[in-house]
Amino acid sequence: MADQHAQSGEDKRPTGIPVLRWEEPPEGPVLVLLDQTRLPAEEVELVCTDAPALVEAIRSLAVRGAPVLGIAGAYGVALAAVRGFDVDDAAAALAGARPTAVNLAVGVRRAQAAYRAALARGDDAERAAGAALAAARQLHREDAEASARMAEHGLALLEELLPGGGYRILTHCNTGALVSGGEGTAFGVALAAHRRGELRRLWVDETRPLLQGARLTAYEAARNDMAYTLLTDNAAGSLFAAGEVDAVLVGADRIAADGSVANKVGSYPLAVLARYHHVPFIVVAPVTTVDADTPDGASIEVEQRPGFEVTEITAPQVPVAGAGGGIPVAPLGTQAYNPAFDVTPPELVTAIVTEEGVVSPVTGEALAELCARSRQVTIS
Amino acid sequence: MADQHAQSGEDKRPTGIPVLRWEEPPEGPVLVLLDQTRLPAEEVELVCTDAPALVEAIRSLAVRGAPVLGIAGAYGVALAAVRGFDVDDAAAALAGARPTAVNLAVGVRRAQAAYRAALARGDDAERAAGAALAAARQLHREDAEASARMAEHGLALLEELLPGGGYRILTHCNTGALVSGGEGTAFGVALAAHRRGELRRLWVDETRPLLQGARLTAYEAARNDMAYTLLTDNAAGSLFAAGEVDAVLVGADRIAADGSVANKVGSYPLAVLARYHHVPFIVVAPVTTVDADTPDGASIEVEQRPGFEVTEITAPQVPVAGAGGGIPVAPLGTQAYNPAFDVTPPELVTAIVTEEGVVSPVTGEALAELCARSRQVTIS
Repeated sequence: MADQHAQSGEDKRPTGIPVLRWEEPPEGPVLVLLDQTRLPAEEVELVCTDAPALVEAIRSLAVRGAPVLGIAGAYGVALAAVRGFDVDDAAAALAGARPTAVNLAVGVRRAQAAYRAALARGDDAERAAGAALAAARQLHREDAEASARMAEHGLALLEELLPGGGYRILTHCNTGALVSGGEGTAFGVALAAHRRGELRRLWVDETRPLLQGARLTAYEAARNDMAYTLLTDNAAGSLFAAGEVDAVLVGADRIAADGSVANKVGSYPLAVLARYHHVPFIVVAPVTTVDADTPDGASIEVEQRPGFEVTEITAPQVPVAGAGGGIPVAPLGTQAYNPAFDVTPPELVTAIVTEEGVVSPVTGEALAELCARSRQVTIS
Repeated sequence: MADQHAQSGEDKRPTGIPVLRWEEPPEGPVLVLLDQTRLPAEEVELVCTDAPALVEAIRSLAVRGAPVLGIAGAYGVALAAVRGFDVDDAAAALAGARPTAVNLAVGVRRAQAAYRAALARGDDAERAAGAALAAARQLHREDAEASARMAEHGLALLEELLPGGGYRILTHCNTGALVSGGEGTAFGVALAAHRRGELRRLWVDETRPLLQGARLTAYEAARNDMAYTLLTDNAAGSLFAAGEVDAVLVGADRIAADGSVANKVGSYPLAVLARYHHVPFIVVAPVTTVDADTPDGASIEVEQRPGFEVTEITAPQVPVAGAGGGIPVAPLGTQAYNPAFDVTPPELVTAIVTEEGVVSPVTGEALAELCARSRQVTIS
């Protein structure tokens, strides 16, 4: 069951964005989520007291974004275990809440495996539940640490590429604390630059069709008092032409073995513009994003999303009207091409920044070496 | 005073889009406009019986787009004259309805000059009013003829550049019958290809922030039974990468003497993508768009529009909420960069198609020669 309570008043405003946290009030443990569907208009928290409430929160996109879904899934398993529900049932429901979200299933499995291992070695249900919770907390901590290391490596790269400082960074989609256990990937690097007083301007692409830039990245930039300006994705070309962009920083949904980067649609045109204007195009993503089983960009299957995301406008405050729950802007019956991602070939990527270091120039060999190093670190 | 009546039922649906027409019912002459603010949801006509009604229609953007504004302005002067109102008062009000719309003032002055010239040569008010109406009709006809000639030249160019036929054309913003006395500029070329059975697909950029592609170009494509697909401006890159675009066709708001093209924001990124993918980028515009007083791209002043067009979503059916009359999508206080146009340098423009012929490669000399030829034709 989920309860909602709104966060209000400047004084109560926390410095970090509480995207997700485990709490243990006297009534029993809960997982508290920031309801991302209500942003940026309202900061409303969803309090999940059981796995079905979390499943519903994941389905409704109240919580979203690859790394944070994995963490939420792991906590969901722990929640079921600590409250004495059937852990395998909860795990199956959670992993299936969004079938294409790989991280979600991985996070769920990790907490479930810890629970099972504890039982197998003779622990009672309470201790096994503790093991599941410890696994969730460990995943959460690892993700936060990976964010911090990406920010560090990314900032060092910016200092090397742009020795003058005072960066004007263009970013796309949402890659900050809302999708991470820490402060995110591309956004985390911009935030680190801001904290060092080196961020002159964060240019925020609105990121059609779902407007994650306008709704979420602008929200995170505002919350962190960064100097930011929103623009339609269309207007990025004018910024490049005017020499107003020093670097492009984006995240990645998947990186093929050859260094091809699948990311939110609109990333590839930015890479082409960046190349034309001799501006670095930098991808920031954890090592787990590199998929050795996908040899190249052509092998990446791009999800085609429903056309109504384009033919209708949806926003938290829009009353439900069209087939997709939004307001129709195109003629009825209009067909839309709506790929979720696009693929940027390695030759257009200046560098890939991971928690294990920077790959530049981007080649299959350099990526493979980095991944091997990462596995060694994990094993040791 | 303006009356509205909705067009409904498939059987009453005209083949052409009646963007604007002069009618003479027994109650006296009227100017009938298609209310573009209601598109694509409804086809509603506005019947203007006097100049103030037309001024209001222009201000509310019920009628919009450079060439058609000039024609509407000229008819407005004729309407005042035929109905016996003060022609100079009407002309001043009409020309000032949208101060930055150059074509509007030009059209108004043309009908006003015809009226004054008739009076000066001793005609009575009725005959002078007839002269004003004749001038409006002449402008309307000239614009329609220019559209037809651009379509002819554009189609010949496509046949030359893409001898295989079966074009997949990407277009941006709205450049069809809704903004023209005829069938438009870039859209008119695509329509001509469609009529010849040579248009395989019209890719329609939605054109943020005002969504002229989704709302108006999709409407015109549907009305003409063209095979069209809508996409976010972001998704064009994926189409290029997949080899799904044979040519880009756009209009122009102003062309500098060196061939730099100012057009709706988002055109320049398409030009860069087109160059990167070796796809022709073709500008279609009447000779009057060439501004000999603007030497180059850097001299073109780009209008910066209000940020709320980006921070809020507006659509005909959206209830009024934010400062700009739309629904806020970004956090309150978000600053937005919102240039109306961008500038594409001549080296990225494959060809400029005008009613007087095609300029390719695009150079200042070739453009000047074309304009000189055009003036000769006009004078003779």
